[in-house]
This record gives sequence, structure tokens and C-alpha cells, in this order.
Amino acid sequence: MSGFTAEATAAREASRVLAATPTETKNCVLRAFADQIVASSDAILAANKVDMERARAKGLAAPKLKRLELSASSVAQLASGLRQVAELPDPVGTVTSEKRVPSGLRVRRVRVPLGVICMIYEARPGVTADAFALCFKSGNSCLLKGGREAGETSGVIAALARRILCEHGLPQHAITLVTSSDREELKGILKLDTLIDLVIPRGGEELIRFVAEHSRIPTIQHFKGVCHVFVDRTADLERAISVCVTAKTSAPATCNAAECFLIDHAIADQFLPQLAKALADAGVEARGDEASRRIVPSLSIAGSDDFGREFLDLIAAIRVVDGVRGAIEHINRYGSRHTESILSRDPATIAAFRSGVDASCVVANASTRFNDGFQLGLGAEIGISTTKLHAYGPMGLEELTTQRFEVDGDYQTR
Amino acid sequence: MSGFTAEATAAREASRVLAATPTETKNCVLRAFADQIVASSDAILAANKVDMERARAKGLAAPKLKRLELSASSVAQLASGLRQVAELPDPVGTVTSEKRVPSGLRVRRVRVPLGVICMIYEARPGVTADAFALCFKSGNSCLLKGGREAGETSGVIAALARRILCEHGLPQHAITLVTSSDREELKGILKLDTLIDLVIPRGGEELIRFVAEHSRIPTIQHFKGVCHVFVDRTADLERAISVCVTAKTSAPATCNAAECFLIDHAIADQFLPQLAKALADAGVEARGDEASRRIVPSLSIAGSDDFGREFLDLIAAIRVVDGVRGAIEHINRYGSRHTESILSRDPATIAAFRSGVDASCVVANASTRFNDGFQLGLGAEIGISTTKLHAYGPMGLEELTTQRFEVDGDYQTR
Repeated sequence: MSGFTAEATAAREASRVLAATPTETKNCVLRAFADQIVASSDAILAANKVDMERARAKGLAAPKLKRLELSASSVAQLASGLRQVAELPDPVGTVTSEKRVPSGLRVRRVRVPLGVICMIYEARPGVTADAFALCFKSGNSCLLKGGREAGETSGVIAALARRILCEHGLPQHAITLVTSSDREELKGILKLDTLIDLVIPRGGEELIRFVAEHSRIPTIQHFKGVCHVFVDRTADLERAISVCVTAKTSAPATCNAAECFLIDHAIADQFLPQLAKALADAGVEARGDEASRRIVPSLSIAGSDDFGREFLDLIAAIRVVDGVRGAIEHINRYGSRHTESILSRDPATIAAFRSGVDASCVVANASTRFNDGFQLGLGAEIGISTTKLHAYGPMGLEELTTQRFEVDGDYQTR
Repeated sequence: MSGFTAEATAAREASRVLAATPTETKNCVLRAFADQIVASSDAILAANKVDMERARAKGLAAPKLKRLELSASSVAQLASGLRQVAELPDPVGTVTSEKRVPSGLRVRRVRVPLGVICMIYEARPGVTADAFALCFKSGNSCLLKGGREAGETSGVIAALARRILCEHGLPQHAITLVTSSDREELKGILKLDTLIDLVIPRGGEELIRFVAEHSRIPTIQHFKGVCHVFVDRTADLERAISVCVTAKTSAPATCNAAECFLIDHAIADQFLPQLAKALADAGVEARGDEASRRIVPSLSIAGSDDFGREFLDLIAAIRVVDGVRGAIEHINRYGSRHTESILSRDPATIAAFRSGVDASCVVANASTRFNDGFQLGLGAEIGISTTKLHAYGPMGLEELTTQRFEVDGDYQTR
């Protein structure tokens, strides 16, 4: 039995205890963990300083350094996030349907935890606290395979969680942290399909593809977000400008940022010059197709690979389309099933867009950036799934559970 | 583009049409298909005769021959099954939650089809009609990879379905049948993760393991059913006998048949002799542990591999356990997360069993054999999942859909 099989076996055993732990006990643990994080702020920041120094010495890129770094205020935020999870309703035990069937049996479907969840992530040390909180509240053990860069910081946070678990008489293997970046070790973990119920990779596309290819365990995948905004001929064009511009600029590196604007040809002459100016004023490089550039010649030329591309930067593609049908065709070819938005006043056009477009979130008359567990009212988010099995879109606590059947009878035979 | 990629691409395109097809149109197709099956009964039976002759010539084993064979009455049953699917509620478009969030957005979760579902099955030609009906009613295209043994019969059935689809102006690629048993071809299909959304293998454990190992597409797994009945000290012992005996004997080759009886030591002296006699009278070979054999020396000896074993035959294992704790320990070690049953009058004991046992269906005071989509009120069943992602237990129409988010706003930005 390798080291990791032993850890996963202990996590499985812990998960049996967690499945039967009352909501109030779980909430107490989360609040105590939040208090402990605040009380240990100095120790967490000192560990983070060590991680940052090592990372700088290794020449880690600036965006990764930014994700790695914690401040006194981000530690306080971490604690307040834990308190918020304590306030959320506990999905475990919820009866989602109940009926009596012809044999006389009473049949209920009841939410139960998944069991053991393995999160694979990179530099962000805060995920160590977040992911534990969401798994724990939903009655699951977690195996956290975090990046080596954040090893010191994550180590301190996980040790605090284990101490609090012990103080409440709960198994410390409710959380297990492994920080290394060894792909062979990861392959070994991904084979433990009898001990781990779900794998959630969070990180770059390359990591997610590696996990998807090597995992025998069900995996929630979120490859990328290539989100479109379609501006229909009936849209409120003035307000459309601010939706388009902010959808690109408010957080260009996030997966729900807009990458491409599809403009109805019927309003292109009027709308495109305004959109182009607003994007340029906001520092966005707009790359247009031929039809767009006939209207606004100053646009950069969109290359063939600029459609269907996740720029993660202040760059956007623009294309003139033949009404809602043209928009649907473009999205079905280039979209990533993440988020698609239509701006329109016409209910029939909105309905056609909804019915033609395949995405985890279809938005009418608002920004793509609302596809987020907090914004959509889940109260939390452990990731966004762009595959349809189990969860499609943002995953909250409920998505970390499953439903089983519970049956009561009177000695019925069959 | 290989032949199969082209077929899968056509299935994907067809799925877009099906997703927007009204319920009443789908029901018309299903009823017309049922009529057509009845009208073509002779052609179906003639094709089945060809398959049977080839299978006999190839020396196919008797149980497989039995699964392959159709009769006039089984063809009529097939048609009546299709009519039943037409009567079931259509899950597509169901709003499962709706709320207004603080930003003012209205957020709905709505059931949508999965897209393209690949069923992999063996000899049963009826699955060709069943699986199409369930996928179609839930708005999905299906790729049916059936066994070569049933090639002629399945071919006639699939051609009838395509004819009916054409007559209703729907894409014939809503159903695609491939009958071969080529594992290399299957591996190729299992790589088409951008074209196929779900794989459901139905067949022997070896086939399911092959699919699980080679699939990059999410897969619903059902390896085996090792179901237990625990007889608690407070059970109604007289009625317990008939639950135990029928759970083993009414259909010993099914996955929800009982394989092992766990007897509370407090009632073992009284109950075991009666159970042993009733099982023997029903032609069941009972294999007991040491404690059972001290009470009933005539029992066969249970070998170490007889616990956790799916006999699929008139053989059962028996073990004396130390109350409900002992039963839970045994089940957590040997169970397959399929169905676990407790016979008891004591609510606290039943609650302890429920909370300690991990299975897709936990039954109190009835046979394990009720874990079945029809018996549990789903109205249909396309398989039973023993993994927890997406579906846990029998899968009906709802489990062939997913939920997406639909958002309505008033030009909110973020």
C-alpha cells in the first residue's frame, strides 16, 4: 500500500463519520476554523512570505506570484468566507422527492455526500481553506493536491483545520493536503477509483487535460470560457455598449469574460462605430471580421484563430452576423458551452437564442460575467463545469452531494 | 474523418433539432414507432431467426441465446413499452428552481437534454428500441453500439425508427446503430469527447471495465450488485423468511437479487434453522460462516471469496453478525453500493443502518429486488448507476437530462 493509498483509505473512513455529522457540529467547526485563521494570521503570513521568496528565487511569473501572495486583508477575507459557508443551508439529508408507489413502498430521494473529493489546484493557497470548507459542509472528506509553490502557506492552513477537527472529536483525515507537482504521483492518485469519488482540477487547460486523460475517477471539467455577447437589432444600443465593454474589461483573465461580440447586420452600421470607440477608449484591442472592418476600417484584422479563442486579455473579436440564426451558428461552432449572452427586446428572438445555443448559462440582457456561483445565488462556488454530467455551470454545496433512494416497506416481496 | 466521426457529428447536429422538438411531436413519433413495430412483427421475427441461427452455429451459450431470442409476445411488449414512454412526463424544459438575486437578475435552472448518448450493449435486441425511446423522449440523439449477435434484428428495428423519424420531418441521425464487436473501433468511439456527452455500457463486468478504462467521455458505471439483507433482532421473523427467500430466488441473475444474508446473533439460534430450511426447500445452496454452521451444521462452508460475491445463481452466503454495527461493517467492506436492506421493527436501528451504509438504495422492510426504475416510480430505466456522479441508482428520463442556468436581466453590468 503506497503512502497515498493509505491517506485515501483514511479519507474514506473519515467520510463515513462526516456523512453522519450533524449540521450544527459542522457549522461550529467552520466558525472555529475561521476564528483560528484570524488568530493565526501572523503565522499564515510568515509562511506565505517563505513561499513568495522561494517563488521569486525560482523566477515564477508575475500573475502566478500574484495568485500566491496573501495579505492581512486577504487572510481576513478567507475567514469571513468560512463563516459564510457556515451560514449556508446544509444539503445533506434534504428529501428531494417522496411518493408511495403501487407496491405500497414509500420511496424517497435523499441528498447524501459524495464521499471523498480530490481537488487539484495550483498556486492559490486560499483554495486550501475554501475547498475544505465546502467539502466538509457537504459531508465529504477532501484530498487537496495543491501546488508546491504554496506548500508552506497551505501547510499551515491545513494544520489549523486538523487541529480544529480534533478539538471537535472529528477525524483529522477529513482534510489531507499533498503539495507536490509530481505528475507520476498525480497519475497514481487518479487510479484510486475505489477510494475517491470525484476529482475537480482547477488550473490551466494543460493540467485539466492531463487529469481528464489519466483519471479513472469521474472528473468535473472546465476547459475554458469562450463567451459571446450577441447584440440583436432590437437591443437598447446605448446600454448595450456598457454591457459589452465591462464584460470584456472588468476582469479580462476570468473565464466568464466576453471574448467575442456578435453584431446583428441590421444594426451594424449604427452600433459598430460606437462599440469600437468605447472599446478603444477602454484600452481593448478589437479584432474585426471583413464585414466589421468595412464599417470600422480602424479595427485590427481578426485572424481565423481569433474566433473561438479565450484571449484572457484586453483583446476582443468582433463579427457581423446574419441575425439570431447567424449568432447561433457562430456560437455552436466556436463556443465552449460556458456562457452566452443575448441583448434584445424581442421575446421571440430571445427564445430562439435560448433554444439554439448550448451553454451552461444562457443570459438575456446582462453581462456574461454573472455566470458565477455567488452571482447566481448558490452562495458558494467550487468550480464551473462545462461538461453536462452531474453539474453544468457553477457548482455549489448541492453539487457536492448526490441523491440516493431510501425505501420503507412492510415486508413486500418481489 | 473516420466513418464514426462522421456519424457522431451527424448525431450531434440531430441533437440540436431534438432539443427544440415539442413534447407532443416526440410522443407522436413514439406511438407511430410502436404501431410500426407491431405492423412489422413478422419482419422483426424473421431477422431474429437469422440472428438465432447464426448464434447457434457459433455455439453461443444458452443464457446469451435466451437474451437474443424474440417472440411475438416479446415484440408486442416492446411496442407497449414505447407507448408507456410516450405517456411519461417530458423532463426537458422543467424549471427546477427560480429566484431573483440581489443584482436584480432572475435566475432559473432548467432541464435540458445531455446531447448525444452512446449506449454500449450486448445481445438483447429489444434494447435498440428501448434505449432509442428513452434518449429520444429526453431530447437526446443516441449512438447504439449493439452486439454483432443481434445485428439483423437490431438493424430492422433501427431502420423502422429512422423511417418514422423521416415521416415526422425529424433527422434520422437521432438514432445510429453500429453492430460490431471490434474493441479497436470501440476505443475510437470512446475518444470522441467533443461529440458524445455520455456513455452507458450495459453488459458484463469485463465490458464495463474496458469502457471505464478507455473512455475520455463521462461514463455511467454499474459494475455489479452485491446486495445484502440484514435481519435485525426485532424483525418479524416469519415474514423475514419470505423476503429473504424471494430476494434470492425470484430472479437470481439480476443485479438486485440478494447475495448474502446477515443475521443478528441475538436471533440466530431461532431464525437460522428456519431460513436454512426455507432456502433449501427453494433449491438454494446456502454457504454459512463458522458461527452459522455451529447452529445449522448442514450448511455448506462459505469460502473467503463467497462474501462480496455476486453469485448470479441459486447460491447465497450467510453470516452471523454482531447487531446492526456488525452488519454495517460487513456491508462497508463487501457491498457494491447497489442495494442494502434491513428487516427491523426498531426505528433507531433502521436509522443507524441508513446512516452507516453507503448504497444507491437503502431499503427498510422489503426486498432488495425493488431497486428498479419501474418499481421505484421512475416510469422507465436505462440502467442502474453504482457511481455517485450525476445519477446514483436507477436512471430514468430525468437522469438523461442536465440542468443549465437561464438568466434574465435589464442590462446589468459587472
